[in-house]
Amino acid sequence: MDVSYVNPFIISTVNVFKKMIHTEVKPGTPLLKNQPYPTYDISSVIGLSGEATGSIAFSFPKVVGLKVVSEMVGEKIKTVGQELTDGIGELANIITGNAKKDLSEYKLSISIPSVVIGKNHMLSAPKGTPTILVPFTSSIGNFAMEVSLKTK
Amino acid sequence: MDVSYVNPFIISTVNVFKKMIHTEVKPGTPLLKNQPYPTYDISSVIGLSGEATGSIAFSFPKVVGLKVVSEMVGEKIKTVGQELTDGIGELANIITGNAKKDLSEYKLSISIPSVVIGKNHMLSAPKGTPTILVPFTSSIGNFAMEVSLKTK
Repeated sequence: MDVSYVNPFIISTVNVFKKMIHTEVKPGTPLLKNQPYPTYDISSVIGLSGEATGSIAFSFPKVVGLKVVSEMVGEKIKTVGQELTDGIGELANIITGNAKKDLSEYKLSISIPSVVIGKNHMLSAPKGTPTILVPFTSSIGNFAMEVSLKTK
Repeated sequence: MDVSYVNPFIISTVNVFKKMIHTEVKPGTPLLKNQPYPTYDISSVIGLSGEATGSIAFSFPKVVGLKVVSEMVGEKIKTVGQELTDGIGELANIITGNAKKDLSEYKLSISIPSVVIGKNHMLSAPKGTPTILVPFTSSIGNFAMEVSLKTK
């Protein structure tokens, strides 16, 4: 299975975290996710359509999500609310927008981010759409990226 | 605020439930959702892009989701797993695909469904993107539809 389409999302994540969150993040080994299983507490999901269809999600433990958005907006965010969800959504939007440029063969259009809040919720893509999970580590905590893409 | 774009989604939901789930569902009064608050246990989220961008989500209590998919596939689904998430995702996909035909002015493309599982999770759209929540009642239980759409 050629999953090279994941690389632009990984590179964009590293770059956007460096620039906007002032944090070096390190991608771990990508895994093929075969079934729904619990992710973290806050996820931002963006739909992808075009010559390929799919979705991309970034998922954070609550404490990491709060740190990420605090660093992004330059002020301490302590509670789960619109400020947090907007920040996490915007971050996913920027990462996806940048990655899209390196995936021009798919002519992707991207939806607005939907942010999910719920302790240990699970995300699931339809059968037949492979989901590649990429774990990230950083000094402010761990998070995960999930890319589900069905190329035509 | 003109929210007439919600009507094709309501009509499609009623029609698809009648045809595929053999159930009459009744839409309640649409509400403007101003902040994230808990929804149900299983949600299917589809991204929308084109001349408008947004997302549509269907959210079910666990017991209702299981009944809906059991009715849809014609066999009793008792556990939360890939069968359930695929069914809920496919249902959302069909409803959204049908609604799209009546919203041709937006030239919408739709992403694959992402299914979220998590007790009382919340869904949130970005600031500036109004979310219209439509509650539905039926003999097999209640569920909700959320349409977030930003017209250009």
